[in-house]
Amino acid sequence: MESGSALKSFVEYTSEHHFPLENIPYGTFKNPESNEIHCCTRIGDFVVDLAALHDLGHFSGDNLKSENVFKHEFLNTFMALGRPSWTEARATIQNLFAEGSSFENDEDGKSKALFAFDKVEMTLPVDIKDYTDFYSSKNHAYNVGCMIRGPDNALQPNYTYLPVGYHGRASSVVVSGTDVRRPKGQVSADKKVPTWSDCKRLDFELEMGAYVGVGNELGKPIKIANASDHIFGLSLLNDWSARDIQVWEYVPLGPFNAKNFASTVSPWIITLEALEPFKIAHQDQDPEPMPYLREDNPSTYNIDLHVGIQSENMDAPHEVCLSNFKHLYWNVNQQLTHHAVTGCNMSTGDFLGSGTISGTEKSERGCLLELSWAGKEKVSLGNDEERVFLKDGDSVHMTGVCKGDGYTVGFGDCVGKILPALDDSEYF
Amino acid sequence: MESGSALKSFVEYTSEHHFPLENIPYGTFKNPESNEIHCCTRIGDFVVDLAALHDLGHFSGDNLKSENVFKHEFLNTFMALGRPSWTEARATIQNLFAEGSSFENDEDGKSKALFAFDKVEMTLPVDIKDYTDFYSSKNHAYNVGCMIRGPDNALQPNYTYLPVGYHGRASSVVVSGTDVRRPKGQVSADKKVPTWSDCKRLDFELEMGAYVGVGNELGKPIKIANASDHIFGLSLLNDWSARDIQVWEYVPLGPFNAKNFASTVSPWIITLEALEPFKIAHQDQDPEPMPYLREDNPSTYNIDLHVGIQSENMDAPHEVCLSNFKHLYWNVNQQLTHHAVTGCNMSTGDFLGSGTISGTEKSERGCLLELSWAGKEKVSLGNDEERVFLKDGDSVHMTGVCKGDGYTVGFGDCVGKILPALDDSEYF
Ligand SMILES: [Ca+2]
Ligand SMILES: [Ca+2]
Ligand SMILES: [Mg+2]
Ligand SMILES: [Mg+2]
Ligand code: NI
Repeated sequence: MESGSALKSFVEYTSEHHFPLENIPYGTFKNPESNEIHCCTRIGDFVVDLAALHDLGHFSGDNLKSENVFKHEFLNTFMALGRPSWTEARATIQNLFAEGSSFENDEDGKSKALFAFDKVEMTLPVDIKDYTDFYSSKNHAYNVGCMIRGPDNALQPNYTYLPVGYHGRASSVVVSGTDVRRPKGQVSADKKVPTWSDCKRLDFELEMGAYVGVGNELGKPIKIANASDHIFGLSLLNDWSARDIQVWEYVPLGPFNAKNFASTVSPWIITLEALEPFKIAHQDQDPEPMPYLREDNPSTYNIDLHVGIQSENMDAPHEVCLSNFKHLYWNVNQQLTHHAVTGCNMSTGDFLGSGTISGTEKSERGCLLELSWAGKEKVSLGNDEERVFLKDGDSVHMTGVCKGDGYTVGFGDCVGKILPALDDSEYF
Repeated sequence: MESGSALKSFVEYTSEHHFPLENIPYGTFKNPESNEIHCCTRIGDFVVDLAALHDLGHFSGDNLKSENVFKHEFLNTFMALGRPSWTEARATIQNLFAEGSSFENDEDGKSKALFAFDKVEMTLPVDIKDYTDFYSSKNHAYNVGCMIRGPDNALQPNYTYLPVGYHGRASSVVVSGTDVRRPKGQVSADKKVPTWSDCKRLDFELEMGAYVGVGNELGKPIKIANASDHIFGLSLLNDWSARDIQVWEYVPLGPFNAKNFASTVSPWIITLEALEPFKIAHQDQDPEPMPYLREDNPSTYNIDLHVGIQSENMDAPHEVCLSNFKHLYWNVNQQLTHHAVTGCNMSTGDFLGSGTISGTEKSERGCLLELSWAGKEKVSLGNDEERVFLKDGDSVHMTGVCKGDGYTVGFGDCVGKILPALDDSEYF
């Protein structure tokens, strides 16, 4: 395949479409015929049931021909197989959907495996084991630090030595389209005495997440040279945050209830193979990382990240942020290696959030806390509406896009809508 | 059954034994005949294969008679059934092992279900979903706060308003008997520039943990009046901690690598039914908790907790701490209700660590950080050895004991031994 020129599929799509033959994302969906949840990919506007393709005998390569690893509710079984199987699956699917393949005219086969995207329900793609959230955008950490401690001490001393992260809540990771209930809890204006309140500072966080495909044994670290072979792919992540609950609860052990009510992921996981043409040199790191975090040619990916807010009065989201994955100070290999350095065993299905991804420009700030500078500046929704934090009925839309030569590799959508808080009678 | 007088079983044990007919703990073990892992209980020195008892037709009650929920590698299926099933299982087992039961003379049945404890391997009892660690001993938080901020600001303002907690790492929870590798990572003497080092301040933390049996739906809180029906039981927990790694990494998002290399649980889970005779009034809470955290008759359990250290030169552990579960400022119902207050969905198999359980006395301090007052005071091992933190080859032994009238309900042992750090060549 010639890099930089679009591949040709018998499925039609435009050069702007997120899911051409160059992408081959992975997800799970409810097959509308069987009502079973299976692993799937997507070509253009079709969701492709990979379990059906396997039953039809199309996975004839050595790694995938025996067990139908796609006939599962989650991708974990496939993810655990490792890179040779991932590469084989990608090549098999690309050949099958190439213009002129024998499958092009197999109407019976296509009717069993292809479903219109807008007719199916996408489900949470991975049985998420442990969820970790990093804090790897230096611009974001600096901005938040400025609000709390002022510009002179904005960054903590450890920030440029290690990828700061914390353990998150795996159970409340939900797939795009799941509504998010506004939380209630303790907030405190004076940081001395709390009151019971619904969250008044509900925020999104523009993040990406990496799924671990292959883990490591407890007690054995992961060398950074091997890190990328553990990573199955990337997706979008909206790490919803209750800022007023957070500032009261997080001392001294970190965010807890302010984050664990919901984290929304996109239904599609984009593989590192699909992102390979969009690899770029990683930003310089000063000080030089310690040897265990040092790579020969550190790289990252050039992925434009868009966030829009749509109020109940609007027909479409209004863009409030355009950032890019490349703004992360620590890359995914460094995050993974650091996570396992003390011997922590990473598992198939672990999910590593990047932290809010902000650039240096105002328009590149990846959350309302930064966009409104802690509530001080109003953010326009393009009509007569403004926001400092999210209102009930608002939906937040995220997407990610890589622009190739004559084609696009995209992440699809990551969407969630805010429902009003429950009545107190549900609590006590 | 008359409270305060010992039940009689055809299995013999002393009044000091941790596992009389009053206990009926739950665990999992590898059946030495089939090599399959099954759910089990324990009476005296016998491990009882509950899957075998089910196959023999002994679970004839309405809740448990159909599916053999004990023929699993983990207790989760049984735990998810809820309190009526838990109560039924306990009554069935107590009747079966009572003196004079028909099972007493069923040599064939007993040979299928009973195994000598010292001949079998116990396994991790629960497929742990999310692991959360609280910080609910006020004495511990005060002591640590004194070391960091001095006595005037030892407790953070939120401490007496909510049970502070953070999300932990589920994958590295291991069962008693698993060796623990001394971690390596970044440490910093001046808190400005780090060095690469093996952990020099390796510590244990005496904790207990509560397993969630029945969860709640995402977005729906748990009322405190219903909290205890969600709790399957309690076990011992040693939350190993790398103190020098922790102080460098934990700002501002909490402990991460300092905790995620291993957390050891005891193999037996003790049910709330077994602990009922040891229920006592909970300590006064001032200020009064907010309504969602307020109970009519708050209670806790009187459980003596012992910690011993055994060096490679010793034949038995030397006791370094005698604490009690009752010292926790926040009880398990409050922890669970607070965890779910923002709508976080709790799942079958979630594990809630209590935080280090320290009393007010020096001898009641639940970790070496407190016992050695951050390394300043040496702790005697009873021979000519002293410790400020753990050395390679040290094993830490924890146990928990409830003293009844003529009988004991105990937690068994929670043990782990420190292995030396790996060579740098494993890291880079
Ligand atoms: Ca985040
Ligand atoms: Ca702890
Ligand atoms: Mg979250
Ligand atoms: Mg731990
Ligand atoms: Ni988890």
